[in-house]
Amino acid sequence: MTEENSLRRYKKDDDGVLWISNYVAKARSKTEYKVQRLLHHEHSPFQEISIVDTKGFGRMLVLDGTPQISTGEGFIYNEMISHIPIVTHPDPKKVAMIGGGDCGPAREAMKYAGIEQIDVVEIDQRVTEVCRTLLTPSSFYDNDPRFQMIHEDGLNWIQKNKGNYDVLIIDRSDPVGPAAKLFKPDFYQYVYDCLTNEGVAVFQSGSPFYNTSTLQKTVHNLKELFPIVRTYLVTIPLFPCGIWSFTLASKKWDPLQADLTKLLDQEAQYINPEIFLSSFVLPNYVKKMIETK
Amino acid sequence: MTEENSLRRYKKDDDGVLWISNYVAKARSKTEYKVQRLLHHEHSPFQEISIVDTKGFGRMLVLDGTPQISTGEGFIYNEMISHIPIVTHPDPKKVAMIGGGDCGPAREAMKYAGIEQIDVVEIDQRVTEVCRTLLTPSSFYDNDPRFQMIHEDGLNWIQKNKGNYDVLIIDRSDPVGPAAKLFKPDFYQYVYDCLTNEGVAVFQSGSPFYNTSTLQKTVHNLKELFPIVRTYLVTIPLFPCGIWSFTLASKKWDPLQADLTKLLDQEAQYINPEIFLSSFVLPNYVKKMIETK
Repeated sequence: MTEENSLRRYKKDDDGVLWISNYVAKARSKTEYKVQRLLHHEHSPFQEISIVDTKGFGRMLVLDGTPQISTGEGFIYNEMISHIPIVTHPDPKKVAMIGGGDCGPAREAMKYAGIEQIDVVEIDQRVTEVCRTLLTPSSFYDNDPRFQMIHEDGLNWIQKNKGNYDVLIIDRSDPVGPAAKLFKPDFYQYVYDCLTNEGVAVFQSGSPFYNTSTLQKTVHNLKELFPIVRTYLVTIPLFPCGIWSFTLASKKWDPLQADLTKLLDQEAQYINPEIFLSSFVLPNYVKKMIETK
Repeated sequence: MTEENSLRRYKKDDDGVLWISNYVAKARSKTEYKVQRLLHHEHSPFQEISIVDTKGFGRMLVLDGTPQISTGEGFIYNEMISHIPIVTHPDPKKVAMIGGGDCGPAREAMKYAGIEQIDVVEIDQRVTEVCRTLLTPSSFYDNDPRFQMIHEDGLNWIQKNKGNYDVLIIDRSDPVGPAAKLFKPDFYQYVYDCLTNEGVAVFQSGSPFYNTSTLQKTVHNLKELFPIVRTYLVTIPLFPCGIWSFTLASKKWDPLQADLTKLLDQEAQYINPEIFLSSFVLPNYVKKMIETK
């Protein structure tokens, strides 16, 4: 067996072409991506990390065989997980992200001049180093003194930081592997405690099509703590079935009342004021799914 | 080779489990669905037709190896291609659909009491017969005298029907195989001529992520003819990359000015007045894509 073949969820077809093969048990479906070139692969202390070039999606970060982000459509995920909570808060100064070691959401946060501190808490230092070398230019971070990278377990980190942050972005991956602890009920209390009295948090909350329990539990847990909880939907072409949810939780500020003129200053590929608002509009089946839990 | 293995885009894995394997050349990706049971397969004069049961998506219609619709999420496609043009027109009496022999959009149209005639023009009689037996109960059609099934080439049919229809739904499949002729420039003129002076048409116009030229050409061709052309987006979990476009073309009525109270009477799983409007909100990259052509 070659080293390439030992990578999780990669396979070679009969012509010797390498593919990523992402099986989603709940949807009983696989999404497979033809690899042009495997640029990097390693086993970090936390997970298997690989970077590939593909013709359909551009360059892609893959963790434990699951595609995380690509240069072809990563702007959608990065913009939608960051601009929405940042714009919901009228004057955010301190922002932290748990996960997202590729720093895609952090780059979006940097576009807001009023933000004074951006902390990225990524458990796996190797993810950051690999992404800085191969996925995104490091100049973004090195030249912005507001940016700080913290390589620590997000669950440990958040318990030490009480009442400090205006915006928290929980860019957790699926509830398996290193991110599983970021889906437990206690974690939502720590997020609440880490925010100021006017703080806003956002959580990656799974696909409403095949992963309904993740969305339901996230909304349920957040409603126990926060007065304002709103789920919004985004289509991420790289993710299985496309349709994906984020859930925003806020102590005071309602995203539907936010000052959206702040968005107009940004050079965004995806988000605009109308997209901001319409992402909170839910189809009947998703409304029902959230209400029943 | 067994008969099952001779089906296009089906394959058996090492455990003898059957999968549908849908390769999308433009995205260099495959979506594969684990089949619980192959219920039917045949070669009609036009294409290969199969029906399978899957655990992730329910029962599925597959044409030439490409999944078309499933019982698990077909309500999204069926509602979004039909309710939007029907509600855009203030008083539609005559509605026709080209394609959609499974009659999913037709069932949605039947919910509007004001509609007096619903013609479904499906080139392949076998698609209709297989779907009536295995996908959807035939009672829907047999008990509604407004409904008429016409087995004819859509391009032939539309050239004979001038100025007759209030709403036309062009439920065409991909621009390959029997549907290819429904993407040629002439076809849009025939659609225009088939509508009344106040008519509304809607077209399946491809994925804005990997099939940009289909969307761009559709919008370009329609803008040459119709004063009002609006693209809307829907996420279809069964379709590769999820994100999909429909383009509405109208001689007089603007969907953004439609009377959406009509929607409230419907028992819909997906659409509601807010979804109707928000589906027309486009991300910056899609706006730019449409403008540049």
